[in-house]
Amino acid sequence: MNTDVNIEEKLHQKAETFAQMMTAYLPKVQGKQKTIFDALSYSLLAGGKRIRPIILLETYQALKEQTQDTVNVNTEPTWFKSLDEIVAKFSVALEMIHTYSLVHDDLPAMDNDEYRRGKLTTHAKYGEDMGILAGDALLNGAFELVAEAFGCVKDIGNSADALTLYDRVSRAYQMLSSRAGMYGMIGGQVVDVERTGSALSKEELLFIYELKTGALLEASFLIGAILSGANQEELIRFIKIAKKVGLAFQIQDDILDVTSTMEVLGKPINSDEKNQKTTYVSLCGIEESKKEVERLSKEAMEELKALKLEHSFLTELVSYLMNREK
Amino acid sequence: MNTDVNIEEKLHQKAETFAQMMTAYLPKVQGKQKTIFDALSYSLLAGGKRIRPIILLETYQALKEQTQDTVNVNTEPTWFKSLDEIVAKFSVALEMIHTYSLVHDDLPAMDNDEYRRGKLTTHAKYGEDMGILAGDALLNGAFELVAEAFGCVKDIGNSADALTLYDRVSRAYQMLSSRAGMYGMIGGQVVDVERTGSALSKEELLFIYELKTGALLEASFLIGAILSGANQEELIRFIKIAKKVGLAFQIQDDILDVTSTMEVLGKPINSDEKNQKTTYVSLCGIEESKKEVERLSKEAMEELKALKLEHSFLTELVSYLMNREK
Repeated sequence: MNTDVNIEEKLHQKAETFAQMMTAYLPKVQGKQKTIFDALSYSLLAGGKRIRPIILLETYQALKEQTQDTVNVNTEPTWFKSLDEIVAKFSVALEMIHTYSLVHDDLPAMDNDEYRRGKLTTHAKYGEDMGILAGDALLNGAFELVAEAFGCVKDIGNSADALTLYDRVSRAYQMLSSRAGMYGMIGGQVVDVERTGSALSKEELLFIYELKTGALLEASFLIGAILSGANQEELIRFIKIAKKVGLAFQIQDDILDVTSTMEVLGKPINSDEKNQKTTYVSLCGIEESKKEVERLSKEAMEELKALKLEHSFLTELVSYLMNREK
Repeated sequence: MNTDVNIEEKLHQKAETFAQMMTAYLPKVQGKQKTIFDALSYSLLAGGKRIRPIILLETYQALKEQTQDTVNVNTEPTWFKSLDEIVAKFSVALEMIHTYSLVHDDLPAMDNDEYRRGKLTTHAKYGEDMGILAGDALLNGAFELVAEAFGCVKDIGNSADALTLYDRVSRAYQMLSSRAGMYGMIGGQVVDVERTGSALSKEELLFIYELKTGALLEASFLIGAILSGANQEELIRFIKIAKKVGLAFQIQDDILDVTSTMEVLGKPINSDEKNQKTTYVSLCGIEESKKEVERLSKEAMEELKALKLEHSFLTELVSYLMNREK
């Protein structure tokens, strides 16, 4: 019980720290196009748990000390500074992509939601046209930040180090763009939108879970790992961890909708049943669902142990995400 | 007169060739999310003059032979192959960004257009939700292609060459993402949407022209120039050329809306007056507008001459874009 309070408090702190850092990366409000800056900042600063950037930053942090960097850090003091800056930019880019997906999801032609986390959604506050454009600006802005991350490599004087860093940033960029795209988040969103109102098979449900939410969570772990210089074996373990966390996170969502109370969850319960939504619980039952979360959680912990990360905050975080009660 | 027919025929050919090449770069239609591939391909292959990718490819081509590459091409045969592949990817990415902007522009909450070039717009054919998602998928897909362009650098064996290429691709990527964003195309779009129905000052009109259309045209010239290895002086000349072409292109649009016939233009004339739209012609008169196009055209030609490109197809193209009659 104490541990839980502890981790929630820690996560809240980390979310605050991240939000502050993110503010420094936002474009400055100026010019005739001021409205788009306002709408974009409003969407980004409307709260949220910042789970994706925190996963990215914690994966990077946990591996940073472990990973044998191929550079001589004594002769290359700019290396770590550049890398930290690159990691920060990717974490903000990730949150911008997550946020754009919410802004477009909320549009009248999609889920038509006027409120999110108790606040007006972007289109409800700024108009539907600005909702569309703010989403576009967030998605484009994320890739502007990644482009700036490449610019950081320029400060590295040593050619071999610069090549290593270019390679890492390129692979992190490929990870982010592919997981956000048609074979990732957007692909899941398309199937979710198309199948709204119809009963789903387990295969279809898992497809939507894996792509719509899982893909960007996977990117969070893997970008952190890639940027810290993880080797192929480590990356494969992180893919496994990410897939297990992503799925357990979703199933836990379905479980809490049935077993929690509105007071704990902070939103109406039994909403899935009311909306006749197919969930893991409606397909497999509550006991089977709990067992599946337990199994996924145990396996993820084994992978983290194999990575010698069992004492890191990352492991605490993963455990919390898979077993959270709200 | 013969020259004009000639260039139009050449451009038509080049547009066809580009469209064929682009098809090879499109994601393969498969999986549960097939609808998004269909909607995306429909939008991309619905025709269009492909002006932006043609400018990019022609700028690259014109400079390629001129530019003193810093690499030893004899020992590095993969260099040119990689670079050509990178250029192709950027040209498709550019067209994808242009297309996404049209798809989102046509949405009911924006311009609410059901037809474009005589065909149903994407949302009219696939539904408003798929219109939003297809636009998102195109924008994201453009940056997936750019991420793949970085992958091409891996084939380069020589470190110095690889660093040179990473630097060029990074700068081209920064150019694309910034010109498509809030300080570029999206910024222009925001002001255009906000000021719809109100009379514009000349300053506001020029702001919208420069950002909404000019920014991506500027990216077209500059990405071609950056990837071919243009030096700082050359890049500055290309920025000047791009700004002049972008503005002249828009003013010429305004002129043709008044002076052309529906037969020549292929769309209704006098539409600006009917829609009470502020244009360069409505602000400055037809004579002043023609003089301005003439001035811009002359200055652009001088810059191209200074670049020793007066005999290239690029110069023919620029001249055509600034003086076209439809």
